[in-house]
Amino acid sequence: MEKPTCRGFSAGAAAAGLKKRGALDLGMIVSEVPAAVAAVFTRNRVQAAPVLLDRERIRSGRCRAVIANAGNANCCTGKQGMANARAMARHAADALGIAEEAVLVASTGVIGQPLDIGKVERAVPGLAEALSETGLPDFAVAIMTTDLVPKIITRTGTVDGKAFTVTGVAKGSGMIRPDMATMLCFVCTDAEVAPGLLQDCLAKAADRSFNRITVDGDTSTNDTILVMANGLSGASVRGPASVDVFQGVLDDVLLSLAKMVVQDGEGATKLVEVAVRGAASADDARRVADTVAGSSLVKTALFGEDANWGRIIAAAGRAGADLDPDRIDIFFDGVRMVADGVGLGPDAEARATEVLRQKTFSITVDLNLGRGSASVFTCDFSVEYVRINADYRS
Amino acid sequence: MEKPTCRGFSAGAAAAGLKKRGALDLGMIVSEVPAAVAAVFTRNRVQAAPVLLDRERIRSGRCRAVIANAGNANCCTGKQGMANARAMARHAADALGIAEEAVLVASTGVIGQPLDIGKVERAVPGLAEALSETGLPDFAVAIMTTDLVPKIITRTGTVDGKAFTVTGVAKGSGMIRPDMATMLCFVCTDAEVAPGLLQDCLAKAADRSFNRITVDGDTSTNDTILVMANGLSGASVRGPASVDVFQGVLDDVLLSLAKMVVQDGEGATKLVEVAVRGAASADDARRVADTVAGSSLVKTALFGEDANWGRIIAAAGRAGADLDPDRIDIFFDGVRMVADGVGLGPDAEARATEVLRQKTFSITVDLNLGRGSASVFTCDFSVEYVRINADYRS
Repeated sequence: MEKPTCRGFSAGAAAAGLKKRGALDLGMIVSEVPAAVAAVFTRNRVQAAPVLLDRERIRSGRCRAVIANAGNANCCTGKQGMANARAMARHAADALGIAEEAVLVASTGVIGQPLDIGKVERAVPGLAEALSETGLPDFAVAIMTTDLVPKIITRTGTVDGKAFTVTGVAKGSGMIRPDMATMLCFVCTDAEVAPGLLQDCLAKAADRSFNRITVDGDTSTNDTILVMANGLSGASVRGPASVDVFQGVLDDVLLSLAKMVVQDGEGATKLVEVAVRGAASADDARRVADTVAGSSLVKTALFGEDANWGRIIAAAGRAGADLDPDRIDIFFDGVRMVADGVGLGPDAEARATEVLRQKTFSITVDLNLGRGSASVFTCDFSVEYVRINADYRS
Repeated sequence: MEKPTCRGFSAGAAAAGLKKRGALDLGMIVSEVPAAVAAVFTRNRVQAAPVLLDRERIRSGRCRAVIANAGNANCCTGKQGMANARAMARHAADALGIAEEAVLVASTGVIGQPLDIGKVERAVPGLAEALSETGLPDFAVAIMTTDLVPKIITRTGTVDGKAFTVTGVAKGSGMIRPDMATMLCFVCTDAEVAPGLLQDCLAKAADRSFNRITVDGDTSTNDTILVMANGLSGASVRGPASVDVFQGVLDDVLLSLAKMVVQDGEGATKLVEVAVRGAASADDARRVADTVAGSSLVKTALFGEDANWGRIIAAAGRAGADLDPDRIDIFFDGVRMVADGVGLGPDAEARATEVLRQKTFSITVDLNLGRGSASVFTCDFSVEYVRINADYRS
């Protein structure tokens, strides 16, 4: 089967010398025509220079290209940092023969060290030469930091008989590694979507994906999700039916990438869905899911494959949600381990332990109070996580 | 120099078989006369049976004794758990020949497993026999779980020419190990303090000590701080001057114990004070201090002795406090590493790295916005922490 490609996009990568050992560390994605663009950024009050630049440029609703580097976050780098972000866009624009304002910028890597813009400048012309329709996998590699695998996915949809394609790449997680600064995600589509609508769809899709994952509770200074829609498929997303189709495909792409990010979380060995139901409200459900999914003690127990439901119930209890300890049920996949706040004994524990030995499973906490529900994806917390983060800069 | 003792208190410990390998796991502290009592408990919505029982009994403002066990938290144990907590108090009361209602109870250990009350019942008579004025160190050992060292401290003060003594013992931390359930602290004093005043003093002292420490951000179901004041020194705490003296001594005892708890945090190798100043408000300062002190990425960098200020500034940025990234200064002890949000380079880094090699130091974040300040004690996050918590129940 032929692999679907997003019409009118090219991409590529180069080794600019920002990472060690000649690894790919600089990439571009370019649309051959102006594309509608939408973005969501980190909510951290400390924001990297490229984030501040993109926030300005995104207002026009259009762009042609994005240039991204790993190895340096260009954050907490003062006025020179902002000048470097602008220069990065300018070098790309010059090489591509397009307007400087049509280029967006993203960076990921260590915070607080000056970006060597000379290395970027020297690498851009060759990178522009090498752009191709099949270059996105290289781009996905170039933006990796402690990621072990590149993350790329393509999905298709059809509106009014016309097929469109959505392809996304991502690295890291906004909640894993602020220091490596951090979660970047770039999505291309050849559907035609107006900028305002694209922004609405992206905001919803982000809430259903990247805002539902946690690795270590930290939030980066550089988190960015960009979507570019160039319309070259001829599939036009306007009316409610076509918006539903497009939203579904975009949700699928972002949720798939978000799960890949958790699964590849630093030191992670398991991907776990924490589902909460029966909460007094959706907000309460979300609070409990976030607290359980983020608890260091729950996450170390997952690493130890220990069905330690006491830690789950204790985390639920400190989440600030309405709850009655004597009504809580807890399940590992389909195995009920706790009923009405009390453990069901060794048999249930043995079966739950089997569930925990898997690479992927769910924990369900039923508060039995109301109809609020929410779910969050997390990973376990391993010895390797500490090793990676104790040694990262050295 | 003779060691000061709290007049009229005796204590002791026994091996009831709740821990493995015959370790001390059950203890009592008894006042020979009724003592004023005050307490603060966990704010977790899930609370262990002994916490629920003590909350009732504390209302009388008086007690004679406390019985505490390690090895089992008696939490999420249903009606039988509450019956067991009451039975624990009853057995102690019978052995001591005092009223059942005059006995308070505390438990620490695994959540969700039935407490073997028969083991407690069989051990209590021998424990009551063995009580002595010098038995508090044994009690301190009996309440340990993953603690590596017992925590006990004595301080004295004088009011109106009369000397009084305050002695405290503690184990674990309310924010380290909900599962081991968790931070217990018992304080005896021979000062005379009315129950209402004692409660006020304790609330203030707790805010200045145990509410200022974090190990892993989790909050236990069993956290308890109890203070018993039996008045046998003849030093009467009433007027403002005497209250100031008593508050100072109580603050000192609780802060010393709280720091010992952090220093002995699971896997901890360092005790670090995170001080925030120049915040727009005291609340903002506290938010930033808590977020920096609780960040897994900051704590793993401390373990790695890496002066990774990017993680500190990123944590500050997500704390929800007013801040201007371009005005932040960061110090490691006296070494300024960041000025106006920008790193000061290799020399500062080299000197900061020297600071990080110490066992104890401070990180100061100056937001340069206002007069709000706060400080929190934390520890580093080590490979050993994960090992301990992955394997705890096995």
